Amino acid sequence: MKEKGILTVVSGFSGSGKGTIMKGLLEKYQDYALSISCTTRNPRCGEEHGKEYFFVSQEEFEKMIDKEDLIEYANYVGNYYGTPKSYVEEQLESGKDVILEIEMVGAIKVKEKFPDTLLLFITPPSVSELKKRLIGRGTETKEVIEDRIKRAAEEAAIMDKYDYLIVNDDLEDAIEEVHSIIKNERRRCFRNQDFIEKIKEELKGDF
Amino acid sequence: MKEKGILTVVSGFSGSGKGTIMKGLLEKYQDYALSISCTTRNPRCGEEHGKEYFFVSQEEFEKMIDKEDLIEYANYVGNYYGTPKSYVEEQLESGKDVILEIEMVGAIKVKEKFPDTLLLFITPPSVSELKKRLIGRGTETKEVIEDRIKRAAEEAAIMDKYDYLIVNDDLEDAIEEVHSIIKNERRRCFRNQDFIEKIKEELKGDF
Repeated sequence: MKEKGILTVVSGFSGSGKGTIMKGLLEKYQDYALSISCTTRNPRCGEEHGKEYFFVSQEEFEKMIDKEDLIEYANYVGNYYGTPKSYVEEQLESGKDVILEIEMVGAIKVKEKFPDTLLLFITPPSVSELKKRLIGRGTETKEVIEDRIKRAAEEAAIMDKYDYLIVNDDLEDAIEEVHSIIKNERRRCFRNQDFIEKIKEELKGDF
Repeated sequence: MKEKGILTVVSGFSGSGKGTIMKGLLEKYQDYALSISCTTRNPRCGEEHGKEYFFVSQEEFEKMIDKEDLIEYANYVGNYYGTPKSYVEEQLESGKDVILEIEMVGAIKVKEKFPDTLLLFITPPSVSELKKRLIGRGTETKEVIEDRIKRAAEEAAIMDKYDYLIVNDDLEDAIEEVHSIIKNERRRCFRNQDFIEKIKEELKGDF
């Protein structure tokens, strides 16, 4: 029997480099499946259905909510975003480790629903480094950067709810850390109940 | 400031190979300090004070109990065995990861006293393999082997209380798994409260 995969939620401040880490992880290792979210927002130039997002109508999305087809969902600025349950469950059953890259409120919801979820938080080594990275992009206005810092402050308040903190100081190290944490997670006792029960039974058999 | 070390308790069935894994781990990596227990039993041939055990008198041992100088202790067949607190604390403060190789009842006591303790359980891949290893030693009588199996059955009942289960199928793999689990433990959010508080403070400062 194939071992079931681990469900991992990865979050992090805007500017933490979590997207780059995920990209590197998926390129380097074949063990992972990245969950693709559904959204009702319009595709941006270059975005493909089934790649960046599944683009669906509001009616379709609300039907998914009613049928409990979503692990979590939220509404931002008038658009729905959500994680389809079926894809995640299929991948986990097939033994793949599934990664959801979602924001913190969604992450906490997933953990409440599936307590076995592993929560990883990616952070730059310091706030000054975070600011440097946000400014360094050169693509954002001062207002957008200030908004992101403000949002980071809100997010920092619930960082404690995560299982692990990955300090993204060096990209390769961060990729290896994420990989190693997820691999080790398979050795957690609560994920090996079948094995433990088997050992107990066999040892009992002797007397 | 040097990061504080991780306190890890390693237990496992007799015949699980935990002693060999610990020996290999300490030979391969310099990051660990193995805690040495105190005992009131007499040294066996070849055993040295301060190497296998600290050999102390009953009076000395009971003084340590009274002064709360022991993390845990127990009495087996008329002899005391215990883990001296000062050595463990000094090593942890200096940043070393300290390993206690103690039996399960002691392990649970340590976890109750120090909830941050990491509990690792080493098991052979199956009960038949466990028996093969016990018999294969060729040094034990049938009664001793049966006693060990009986004890393993008792121990199996509290395996669930451990954090991780290491299946000792291949020695090198098992050494690497133990090392990697302890290293990753440093990334746990609850062990990075100072860093999290610092980030929170710095982000707050902006508004």
